Amino acid sequence: MKLTNFFLPTKKEVPSEAKIVSHRLMLRAGLIRMETSGIYSWLPLGYKVLEKIRHIIEFQHLQKNINQMLMPTIQSSDIWIQSRRYDSYGEEMLRITDRNQKKLLYGPTNEEMITVLGKDYIQSYKELPLYLYHIQNKFRDEIRPRFGVMRAREFLMKDAYSFDIDKKSAEKTYELFFNLYLNIFNKMGLNIIPVRALSGEIGGDLSHEFHCLCETGESEIVVDTNILEPQKSESFSTFSNYYSSTIEYFEKSGIENSKLKVKKSIELGHIFLFGDKYSSSFDFKINSPSGLIFPYMGSYGIGLSRIPAACIEINHDEKGIIWPQQISPFDLIIINLRVKSELCVNFCNEMYDVCKNQNIDILFDDRDERIGVKFSEADLIGIPFQLLIGKRFEEDSVIELKNRKTGDVLEITEKEFLENYLKKIRQ
Amino acid sequence: MKLTNFFLPTKKEVPSEAKIVSHRLMLRAGLIRMETSGIYSWLPLGYKVLEKIRHIIEFQHLQKNINQMLMPTIQSSDIWIQSRRYDSYGEEMLRITDRNQKKLLYGPTNEEMITVLGKDYIQSYKELPLYLYHIQNKFRDEIRPRFGVMRAREFLMKDAYSFDIDKKSAEKTYELFFNLYLNIFNKMGLNIIPVRALSGEIGGDLSHEFHCLCETGESEIVVDTNILEPQKSESFSTFSNYYSSTIEYFEKSGIENSKLKVKKSIELGHIFLFGDKYSSSFDFKINSPSGLIFPYMGSYGIGLSRIPAACIEINHDEKGIIWPQQISPFDLIIINLRVKSELCVNFCNEMYDVCKNQNIDILFDDRDERIGVKFSEADLIGIPFQLLIGKRFEEDSVIELKNRKTGDVLEITEKEFLENYLKKIRQ
Repeated sequence: MKLTNFFLPTKKEVPSEAKIVSHRLMLRAGLIRMETSGIYSWLPLGYKVLEKIRHIIEFQHLQKNINQMLMPTIQSSDIWIQSRRYDSYGEEMLRITDRNQKKLLYGPTNEEMITVLGKDYIQSYKELPLYLYHIQNKFRDEIRPRFGVMRAREFLMKDAYSFDIDKKSAEKTYELFFNLYLNIFNKMGLNIIPVRALSGEIGGDLSHEFHCLCETGESEIVVDTNILEPQKSESFSTFSNYYSSTIEYFEKSGIENSKLKVKKSIELGHIFLFGDKYSSSFDFKINSPSGLIFPYMGSYGIGLSRIPAACIEINHDEKGIIWPQQISPFDLIIINLRVKSELCVNFCNEMYDVCKNQNIDILFDDRDERIGVKFSEADLIGIPFQLLIGKRFEEDSVIELKNRKTGDVLEITEKEFLENYLKKIRQ
Repeated sequence: MKLTNFFLPTKKEVPSEAKIVSHRLMLRAGLIRMETSGIYSWLPLGYKVLEKIRHIIEFQHLQKNINQMLMPTIQSSDIWIQSRRYDSYGEEMLRITDRNQKKLLYGPTNEEMITVLGKDYIQSYKELPLYLYHIQNKFRDEIRPRFGVMRAREFLMKDAYSFDIDKKSAEKTYELFFNLYLNIFNKMGLNIIPVRALSGEIGGDLSHEFHCLCETGESEIVVDTNILEPQKSESFSTFSNYYSSTIEYFEKSGIENSKLKVKKSIELGHIFLFGDKYSSSFDFKINSPSGLIFPYMGSYGIGLSRIPAACIEINHDEKGIIWPQQISPFDLIIINLRVKSELCVNFCNEMYDVCKNQNIDILFDDRDERIGVKFSEADLIGIPFQLLIGKRFEEDSVIELKNRKTGDVLEITEKEFLENYLKKIRQ
């Protein structure tokens, strides 16, 4: 995309309510816009990041043959009354009355709906295990929405649901999702710690959250110091060797261990094994070799629209965002520093076409704008690599490849760029 | 995807409320499920069709450098009060009060929000024309939701918005979207007639709808009989030569013309040029060579989740759906008719891998199920090509390629299939 065609409304000043750095940078870099309290639009640059994250999640789910579907945002209150969560969910649930006086709600999660769906279609244990997921907006009417998309009211969530014949099979499914989640966050360039968690409103007795360490995070986790060392092979069994939990779980468990530390963090995922809690509420029985049984169920959520904010909290400097290559909105930005030079214009256009043909997701700053503005905006939006075409190119055919994170600038020829660096830039 | 891993809950019987064929077939083929009146889940097979449609729309918008973003579903009522549509929109608007007694609503469309966004970011005519779009759920509280996803309350819509400096530039933009829409529907394998339409609630004085002819459609259009002939080159200027309009527009215009016919149809898209209606409501002014002006705006919608239903109304037979290749959930279904034969199992698996490597979106019926069930379900779900592996393969290495639409079966060798037919199957 050429920047003259791309809607990138960067801002110099942001409202004082934006307290944490990710919120400020997302507003300044033109990623998001607040429409009303806790409700945001994703502007084109932000939307591109969301789509990169969505793509990683979808690809990894497909590898495990987990079926994608799409449930609606609006639900009937009937199913929530039947599960006894309609009253207990409290004021966070956005309750709605339609024109026919029927009580609806904006789904904060989908355990009820998927259970009724399962009951409608699944008759026999032979159809299990069955895994379904969707990526859909949720609404939780937070009393104090804050920190931008980190704690928004309307947000994008990936939620998966599983049906198994018994506890043992359900535990294998739980482990499959546990490892899938480690893999997904790894593919996003995020260092994640899974921690034991309370089940809360969802129910059940086995639950983990997935946290990234972050000094400005709102959560606290208690972890064995061994976990803080870089992991060699990350899997359910590796993490089972060491203690890690949310602070809330820790306080209830009464464990004492001198190797444990409390760390600030951000929660990005949460998985639950809740057994037959919902299948029994809805009297959802299936045939099995031992007669009619309630299927064992679990649910598995990722706070998709929170991930860009968490990434920025961890990856930024005084100039702006530094995207991990895996979820950067673009792979590379070409900056023409001499828009009056035909030589530079032609060369930039040539590189732009070459990169596009190589499937590099590229932004080309072709604007007639001051060099200082171009530099500072490129640093602000945080694309990992910048290709600078200007004076050095005009005089000596030298192009400059800048690494946003380190600030290092390589002076290279066109040939070197195409042969040695292009493949490193592609995700 | 192997069918043993794919959640495809076909049904023999459907509720009597399902009156039109697309609604019945979508329920029977396991594409959708009603959650509550006018609110549907898209099951995996249906979701795949939605994604094919989404991909065509996104690709074509990208070709025209139209920026994709994502606005929220929930809006503040304030902006609708300012545009004077809060009261006039009537009971179709789903009105919500949050925990802090603030009045919200589930967006039925986004003219207000995009205008406020434009006012926030656009200062000068030099930033125009600017085109933005998103694909997002909408809610319209229909008094009688019916015909499945054809007239649902929660539905998926693509809506684009344009900002131009003056009427002339806005008219060029309108023509750009008009041609883009013809192209998009053409890429979906749909024969579309654009018709002049009333602007209704949105406002402005230039508006077109995009209809497909369908005997069971709820709309009526009035068209010059010349338009009913297959079009050679479809563009704004071609269609300008002949009369075509909605019946409502026709009745207001008082035109008399013996060449006009009334036809039943389904509306799939609607575009509006409403000028400064919203920019003036929100006092959104920008700099221009002739001083401060209100930008000229337009909006451009496609009823995304209605398209699969319209396609089925037009493309089906007594056995089930016949998808146009362009939006079929899969390109090809391999059906193993002899699951006990090692020869057939191995060959099917080999073909499955070959097709996947060739980027063919493939479904493989690997189930241990009666042949009759396999045939009838394959016909029901309507994938354009079926590759049958059974007795003829075991005996003579002959594979059968069936065309779902014509019913023709070609008896061919593996070599012929790979060399001559594979490329025709790929979309």
